[in-house]
Amino acid sequence: MKRKSKEVIEKFTPLFKPRSVAFLGASKDRRKWGFITLKNMVSGNYPGKIYPVNPKEEEILGLKVYKGVGDIPETPDLAVIVVPPPNVVPVVKDCVARGIKAGIIITAGFAELGDQGGKLQEEMVAAAREGGMILVGPNCNGIMHPWEKLHIQFPPFLPTAGNIALVAQSGNVVDVLARQIMLRGFGCSILASTGNEADLHCEDYIEYLGEDPNTKVILSYVEGFKDGDRFFRVVREVSRKKPVVMLKAGKTSAGARAAMSHTASIAGSDAVFDAICRQTGVIRTEDLNEMLDIGVAFLRQPLPRGRGVGIVTAGGGWGVLAADACAEQGFDLVALPEETIAELDSFLPAWWNRGNPVDLVAGAFGEAIFKCVELILRCSDVDAAVVTSIMPALGSDWLTANEEPGESERLDKYMIQAVVDVMNRFNGLADRYQKPVIAASELMFGDAGREARIVQAMGQNKASCYHMPRQAAAVLAALARYSEYLQSRG
Amino acid sequence: MKRKSKEVIEKFTPLFKPRSVAFLGASKDRRKWGFITLKNMVSGNYPGKIYPVNPKEEEILGLKVYKGVGDIPETPDLAVIVVPPPNVVPVVKDCVARGIKAGIIITAGFAELGDQGGKLQEEMVAAAREGGMILVGPNCNGIMHPWEKLHIQFPPFLPTAGNIALVAQSGNVVDVLARQIMLRGFGCSILASTGNEADLHCEDYIEYLGEDPNTKVILSYVEGFKDGDRFFRVVREVSRKKPVVMLKAGKTSAGARAAMSHTASIAGSDAVFDAICRQTGVIRTEDLNEMLDIGVAFLRQPLPRGRGVGIVTAGGGWGVLAADACAEQGFDLVALPEETIAELDSFLPAWWNRGNPVDLVAGAFGEAIFKCVELILRCSDVDAAVVTSIMPALGSDWLTANEEPGESERLDKYMIQAVVDVMNRFNGLADRYQKPVIAASELMFGDAGREARIVQAMGQNKASCYHMPRQAAAVLAALARYSEYLQSRG
Repeated sequence: MKRKSKEVIEKFTPLFKPRSVAFLGASKDRRKWGFITLKNMVSGNYPGKIYPVNPKEEEILGLKVYKGVGDIPETPDLAVIVVPPPNVVPVVKDCVARGIKAGIIITAGFAELGDQGGKLQEEMVAAAREGGMILVGPNCNGIMHPWEKLHIQFPPFLPTAGNIALVAQSGNVVDVLARQIMLRGFGCSILASTGNEADLHCEDYIEYLGEDPNTKVILSYVEGFKDGDRFFRVVREVSRKKPVVMLKAGKTSAGARAAMSHTASIAGSDAVFDAICRQTGVIRTEDLNEMLDIGVAFLRQPLPRGRGVGIVTAGGGWGVLAADACAEQGFDLVALPEETIAELDSFLPAWWNRGNPVDLVAGAFGEAIFKCVELILRCSDVDAAVVTSIMPALGSDWLTANEEPGESERLDKYMIQAVVDVMNRFNGLADRYQKPVIAASELMFGDAGREARIVQAMGQNKASCYHMPRQAAAVLAALARYSEYLQSRG
Repeated sequence: MKRKSKEVIEKFTPLFKPRSVAFLGASKDRRKWGFITLKNMVSGNYPGKIYPVNPKEEEILGLKVYKGVGDIPETPDLAVIVVPPPNVVPVVKDCVARGIKAGIIITAGFAELGDQGGKLQEEMVAAAREGGMILVGPNCNGIMHPWEKLHIQFPPFLPTAGNIALVAQSGNVVDVLARQIMLRGFGCSILASTGNEADLHCEDYIEYLGEDPNTKVILSYVEGFKDGDRFFRVVREVSRKKPVVMLKAGKTSAGARAAMSHTASIAGSDAVFDAICRQTGVIRTEDLNEMLDIGVAFLRQPLPRGRGVGIVTAGGGWGVLAADACAEQGFDLVALPEETIAELDSFLPAWWNRGNPVDLVAGAFGEAIFKCVELILRCSDVDAAVVTSIMPALGSDWLTANEEPGESERLDKYMIQAVVDVMNRFNGLADRYQKPVIAASELMFGDAGREARIVQAMGQNKASCYHMPRQAAAVLAALARYSEYLQSRG
């Protein structure tokens, strides 16, 4: 391993893989972060030792409480700090004295409040750095490492272990994205709410995630950069190894002002950020939902080698929408070669449209859709396939299956398996031809509950079916941009 | 009532409020439209008489089957036609001879296949018009009028009666939108899949919907216009009375080609359509999900009188995203007057940010959010409020409520009611100040199932909470554009 990689990993180990955690500001008040965050750590079954600290308590959540960091029988790797703002600096000094190497400052009330808070923040960082202690925050929600069963967070849910990393200058953004990832059936490698980024900056986390073997894609929300040059260098390096998808807030002057009062971030010029993205291979997005759409695609899809697209659609309207969306994203709808048309002719009804999008004629259930996708992938000019509506691939049973009472449960199981099978077949074709196959489809098989169960089951099989053709095209564009970037760097 | 209105209503009554329906091409084959569509009519409890027609059958789904239209004991108001393409013209002629005044041609294989199909289509229309019979389609999925319990459609679900009308040149688009409206807890007035629009054009339906008292907002998907001038005149008239939201597909040349082979539509210039929208007050959208977001807002929200916005946020990141999104949509973030700041000071913690967005400091649960929204609505420069994250309004119970076994069900009920109450209070404030209050929030109260139940319950109370700030800003922009259009027409 390179010396630099080793350094980065060593620096972050006490933070992300602590053997023991001190919790300063632990509370019995169920409304307080000092209770809620501690409770989440306990619920997450963190296997290391937890040392709650509070001079006034004896026991919280069954854990022995210590009067101060000095009283803890060993040196914890990590300190979580939720004490009131004026106590933060002394507490950080205590931690440094005790030899603690990483801290998470959840407490708010620093640079985001102006000059006075800014000074306090500088003092805190100076104290930590003097002792070789790295700091997350302040003004953050905490970090999670599901592979380590480490959940230092606010909302009451535990992301599962997986391959998506989240780094965000907003705790709520982390929470919402994490939950959406769970609902989609995927898991997270590491999640970091980075707050004011007084010590550790966004690029520091990204640098570590570049080394983390569980992380396959990095999603990041930023409001501003403390050190643009270092960000540039780090991200350029990491994006060679894995995709980095970013949403930069504070685009407008109204947003920039809000970013200043949120995390004391200087948003900077949007045009400059755009240029940085182009040069570093960062995939920029304007929408958090789109960020997730893109993130899950990177986990599974091969990268397209060019901009030629073939569309297979069940439902003409979806075909038109998909054609528009792909063209707007800069893709070419490939004119199908004669031999492909001839092969399609051999099994599609005589009145099929003989063009791209290939419009499956109403009633063409079952195998036809897979045959079409495969024939399209075989065309040398086609670099990617988009499938709109997977419904016909599922046969026609569901259309009349709501007749018998008690059918619902059987159908539930049947439909989940059927959709997973269909998506696995598309993904199998993507692997075989090394071209992405992106599906967008309504899932009209029942109520929202069944739909949610289907979506989750797909994700557990590393498959994603988007809702609208526009989403599929946006995802494909992100894959293409990343592919083009890698090609340009050789 | 104006003579013209009366004419329009009379013309469409046999189609949308038929007392009896002939079903030509009824089938026992569960995979065929002739069975599935008939079954949906029966499941929908249509109260009129249904007369299936098929020379080879005696009984289908418990209904007596007739050999031909001539054998039916009365003249049906409406004929649904699913016979094979070559039989359509003779069957239409039979219907005309029988005195039937409206027909729905579900059968495909006409102008969308080229010249030969186009001729057949012309023949069919000529025959119908000679007999004063109006035609939906061909190449369509049918129509629904939930208030009349009339469901002539393909997928196995029945939209509830409500106030959103759908008109689309794609059956699948109607189906997906209808189902999404149901999942959101709203209902539909009339749904029409218009197919090739050989006889009745998109603007004909819109003209009728303008007269329909149940329709409060019209959502429409179009691929092309047969008569641009008439469309212009009709929509300009209707949009004075109720909002018309439209997605025009075939924007790009790839999309335009796809539209031609889907519904034989000539997409036309996109710039021309843009100009038409501006002059007729049509709210244009590029995204079907956004169309729904906008549609449900028109059902409940007052129109803003200007472009001044106040944001109340719980979670700084959401505030930044909302500020960006509102600014990008052309809204001004109002500088809060001193007296408003002073009033906010009186109950917010000392370290609140004293600006717009008003960032509720972490832990400010309960009443604070309502007070903030009301104070903002009272500012004369504020024309609309955006609220990002409603979670703090719900207290903190949910954060630690997953402890006791058996809590889930109680919490489910409690959370649904709590969210509905919060949204009702926001809507109450919107009514009182006659300014829209648009909420965007994660609903982090449990799994996807609970979330779906909450969303549905909100809709049943005419409330919508969007997921992301960008959605809220896009909705607000649509309300503002419509308001500005109405003001410009005086």
